[in-house]
Amino acid sequence: MENFKAPFKGIAKDVRGRAACYRQDWFNGLRSGLGILAPTAYIFFASALPVIAFGEQLSRDTDGSLSTVETLASTALCGIIHSIVGGQPLLILGVAEPTIIMYTYLYNFAKGRKDLGQELYLAWAGWVCVWTALMLFLLAIFNACAIINRFTRIAGELFGMLITVLFIQEAIKGMVSEFKVPKDQDAKQEKYEFQWLYTNGLLGIIFTIGLLYTALKSRRARSWKYGTGWFRSFIADYGVPLMVVVWTALSFSVPSKVPSGVPRRLFSPLPWESASLEHWTVIKDMGNVPPVYIFAAFIPALMIAGLYFFDHSVASQLAQQKEFNLKNPSAYHYDILLLGFMTLLCGLIGLPPSNGVLPQSPMHTKSLAILKRQLIKRKMVESAKESIKKKASNSEIYGNMEAVFIELDRSPETKVVKELEDLKKIVMKGENKGENEKDKFDPEKHIDAYLPVRVNEQRVSNLLQSLLVAASVCAMPAIKLIPTSVLWGYFAYMAIDSLPGNQFWERMLLLFITPGRRYKVLEGVHASFVESVPYRYILMFTLFQFVYLLICFGVTWIPIAGILFPLPFFLLISIRQYILPKLFQPNYLRELDAAEYEEITGAPRLSLNRSFRENDTPHVGNEDEVEVLDAELLDELTTSRGELKVRTVSFSEERKGQVYPEMYLE
Amino acid sequence: MENFKAPFKGIAKDVRGRAACYRQDWFNGLRSGLGILAPTAYIFFASALPVIAFGEQLSRDTDGSLSTVETLASTALCGIIHSIVGGQPLLILGVAEPTIIMYTYLYNFAKGRKDLGQELYLAWAGWVCVWTALMLFLLAIFNACAIINRFTRIAGELFGMLITVLFIQEAIKGMVSEFKVPKDQDAKQEKYEFQWLYTNGLLGIIFTIGLLYTALKSRRARSWKYGTGWFRSFIADYGVPLMVVVWTALSFSVPSKVPSGVPRRLFSPLPWESASLEHWTVIKDMGNVPPVYIFAAFIPALMIAGLYFFDHSVASQLAQQKEFNLKNPSAYHYDILLLGFMTLLCGLIGLPPSNGVLPQSPMHTKSLAILKRQLIKRKMVESAKESIKKKASNSEIYGNMEAVFIELDRSPETKVVKELEDLKKIVMKGENKGENEKDKFDPEKHIDAYLPVRVNEQRVSNLLQSLLVAASVCAMPAIKLIPTSVLWGYFAYMAIDSLPGNQFWERMLLLFITPGRRYKVLEGVHASFVESVPYRYILMFTLFQFVYLLICFGVTWIPIAGILFPLPFFLLISIRQYILPKLFQPNYLRELDAAEYEEITGAPRLSLNRSFRENDTPHVGNEDEVEVLDAELLDELTTSRGELKVRTVSFSEERKGQVYPEMYLE
Repeated sequence: MENFKAPFKGIAKDVRGRAACYRQDWFNGLRSGLGILAPTAYIFFASALPVIAFGEQLSRDTDGSLSTVETLASTALCGIIHSIVGGQPLLILGVAEPTIIMYTYLYNFAKGRKDLGQELYLAWAGWVCVWTALMLFLLAIFNACAIINRFTRIAGELFGMLITVLFIQEAIKGMVSEFKVPKDQDAKQEKYEFQWLYTNGLLGIIFTIGLLYTALKSRRARSWKYGTGWFRSFIADYGVPLMVVVWTALSFSVPSKVPSGVPRRLFSPLPWESASLEHWTVIKDMGNVPPVYIFAAFIPALMIAGLYFFDHSVASQLAQQKEFNLKNPSAYHYDILLLGFMTLLCGLIGLPPSNGVLPQSPMHTKSLAILKRQLIKRKMVESAKESIKKKASNSEIYGNMEAVFIELDRSPETKVVKELEDLKKIVMKGENKGENEKDKFDPEKHIDAYLPVRVNEQRVSNLLQSLLVAASVCAMPAIKLIPTSVLWGYFAYMAIDSLPGNQFWERMLLLFITPGRRYKVLEGVHASFVESVPYRYILMFTLFQFVYLLICFGVTWIPIAGILFPLPFFLLISIRQYILPKLFQPNYLRELDAAEYEEITGAPRLSLNRSFRENDTPHVGNEDEVEVLDAELLDELTTSRGELKVRTVSFSEERKGQVYPEMYLE
Repeated sequence: MENFKAPFKGIAKDVRGRAACYRQDWFNGLRSGLGILAPTAYIFFASALPVIAFGEQLSRDTDGSLSTVETLASTALCGIIHSIVGGQPLLILGVAEPTIIMYTYLYNFAKGRKDLGQELYLAWAGWVCVWTALMLFLLAIFNACAIINRFTRIAGELFGMLITVLFIQEAIKGMVSEFKVPKDQDAKQEKYEFQWLYTNGLLGIIFTIGLLYTALKSRRARSWKYGTGWFRSFIADYGVPLMVVVWTALSFSVPSKVPSGVPRRLFSPLPWESASLEHWTVIKDMGNVPPVYIFAAFIPALMIAGLYFFDHSVASQLAQQKEFNLKNPSAYHYDILLLGFMTLLCGLIGLPPSNGVLPQSPMHTKSLAILKRQLIKRKMVESAKESIKKKASNSEIYGNMEAVFIELDRSPETKVVKELEDLKKIVMKGENKGENEKDKFDPEKHIDAYLPVRVNEQRVSNLLQSLLVAASVCAMPAIKLIPTSVLWGYFAYMAIDSLPGNQFWERMLLLFITPGRRYKVLEGVHASFVESVPYRYILMFTLFQFVYLLICFGVTWIPIAGILFPLPFFLLISIRQYILPKLFQPNYLRELDAAEYEEITGAPRLSLNRSFRENDTPHVGNEDEVEVLDAELLDELTTSRGELKVRTVSFSEERKGQVYPEMYLE
């Protein structure tokens, strides 16, 4: 109730906070020089590929009313606006799956009414956007973001799981469709003769499974044993788009005797063709929509506004997790307001709106953290080496390094002193012991080990990647070369890739492990609830969630009322607050529906590494330093959704001695 | 030279040794009852599938002169003979890849001579067998098996690697052939029209990759986290043949509009068709072979005799490794003699001969070890429980159990007492401490933990599996339903499945790990040479072996002289003995070319399990015992070739404290 009394309070605070660092946001980006291109390219591919896939899905589901051109255009437009005037420039915007589903329902509804039809579909959707924008304005003005902490893990993971199921469904539907003549097509063409349809289907299976398998493999490249670090990083970062290119190239190895059109490729019209141009005039048609439908548009708008509010806030939250040590303030309220404006704009020009996307937003922050780390490290090592050359005392060396850090980081000095404490200790230790080779300060090694996480907070990478998305609208002729079956594989990839790190999924898997084998889970890294919550509560909670998932999935199948599919999620927030606490003990509920992704290490892995550095076996470690990439560590500590994991030691005292034995040895 | 002075000495000793336990060999098998069917079925599938695949390969390479019917018939015939009169009934016989390669060279040679041709091919091959048999007789009589310890790891692994490369080559050749019209076929048939050829090829890719992937996955089922133990064991033991059945069934889901013959299936004639019947009369044609070719047959015979001597001895050796604690004596000399007779027989009736095969022979012993263990355990637990019920003292309980063990095992009592020492300690411990619940003797648990390995040594399983192979000759109409592409996948599966555990392969992989990442190898279980031999010696040795492999592979490509491909391997034995010791220090050479497969554990895994038994977390371990299957442990301790691994603790003192910290805690 507090929030209603002070309208605009949140927005005003956000604007004030961000205005103070606005100039810096641009300057920081430009100062990184060419280094900024790596995160830009990385996030561009991560963001553009799904938008292309969603465009193809939308094109099929709306008989071509909207297609890849529109989804890319919306992503580019909203991205550019957000990167320039948005409050949280780390947030990445894009057309997401919920939008596609909603727009499909809207289309099916409009198509079924005589007085709307395909012609007025976009105009009516425009009205939906008008209502949505209005509601988003109200949410922003009345500081609704204050309730963001009610969106607990249970709702988020359930929603993620529903999207996964829908992706799998889309991949299967897509593969099956490769064996059939597409609707609205002349079945008498050569490429639709039985033998070529069948060939198309078989090629579809090969490309779908091929892309899925290679994409999943390349995603894990960073932890491969083989190959150089540069190579593995490259494959891990760009492997998935690379695989899309490889499989597209392979699709041209089909012999020339096969008729053109086999394998099937993207169907989208080009942006400069009439099919794309005609609906830029949607705003003129909006007056022709019968008033009853204008009011009816309120219902889907309510759902979309709820979804966007939820999605946008969670994406912002994950892009700004406290482990990233961000310095600039957040701007939840202001960004919801801006989202309202962008939704309105998209509605009026006939584009599906964009909102903050997962996991791209936290991926963006992560890639900037790595960049920033490299920049700071280079400068500090330079300074330290110079000081050592000048035979400076250890406290002078440290002093110089601290000065470099403060200059680059622009944090208040008191905070820095605390954060660099460990590094200081190492530098000073060398002073006391003097000649001991092992303890001597080694700039490369020790700075790397004790540098705190810093993110290069700026607007340039977001702007550049949005411009690249805009440029890819013009690259449609090249995008149209992608076989549709490669996109079905990509849907399956997105589905499977989102599973690890989803605790709901991990709990479901746990149910398939026989009691005698559960020690295997404890041996590896595992979520903390496995140790702290009795098995039957895990079982109950998971079954409840599973049944709920089935209900949600069922709702999406209902022809028109399916548009209410976000309703169960809004309901779940109340269920979580009022009903679940009656069924589960509060501490179990806190573990199962934890705010943080907490993990417990299984075996003393890290201590192993350390021992290898110090104690060299004949050929290991001598020739080179132990190679652990920053990005690899961050990969290990982040879920697929982009959530940072909190890794702790087991809290059952008896296990401690055995998991971290060296603590008892020292 | 010693050996030449005492001809027949080895054979006589073998015959005497085996005659003493011949009755027991049958009795032991019959006493196991229906239990014997599990290892029988297991080894039948493991043995029959490759023979079917080799038959198809041979059929293509010899234009149908020999096919699956002949390879199966030879395997069945030799298997039955060997299981009844063979010296080492644990040894499994079959037509192996080297035989196929040799018979292909023989065919290509015969086809190219006007006075031999396809007609006299089998008659000439008969002469080769006659010479081979003669040489095997000589080797057996003059006790050549005494030099078996000269066959070191380097030659065996190189040979295994060559077979792997040849399998991969066969899989690729097969997949490519699916896109082409087979030779000697009418290219005008509907199924050879372009679109159906292309469809056949695409289906081929799907079935080949599908079988390969699913077979590899199911092979590892035993260590899956999910599913019950019974289910995982079943998939691990029978998954590969099951997958052949599944993919064959799937191949019938092709729509009926596709002409029959797409996808292509096995080409072999049925055993009762004239094509199969005609060459049972080979012996009559042998007189028609020109004398010059009869003498020329000596050269391939020399190669085959060398190969068979090598293969048969190594297979026997691995089936009787000392870790299996076998009680019956070996019979290397006698079995080579018998192999000579069987080769002669096969040659005279126009079949490709069989010899001892890897990894089936050690797999056979392993499966019998598991069976025996189950039998003994059941009886001992019964006896212990009965004694406990009768409130017998601990020494009485132990006495009864020992009696049961001696009765079932028929070992001398003095030996048993030593082997059961640990078990005795556990039983007696309960006596002293009295009430301590933890230390109390629990029959199920402790007997399982302290039972020594015992193998059910008998002839029944070998005879039964040979009879099943014979029966599958009659099942040819069903076998012919298998798509050829499934067999190409099976070749690829055999190739890839043979790699882990081959130290040559493991060393090659090691070369692709950058120095900074080598700690990852040491973290896991790793071969002992990684710690004990400096990297540059590993590099040199591996490169030498790799170049040698390339030479060997190159030789197989030479049109007629390719028949000399085993020559480099015989040469290698001399190189190993006289040249390599000059390039490498003896202790390095001993490690790199070790007699045993020695491994070092990486992290204290077993201690983890133990701690879970004792210290129960809320839901793990309480509900059931920790479930570790006998077969799973054996799987982990056996290489793909069937070799038992010797697992030791690291010998570099500094690592010990960190790998086995609890040793220092106690």
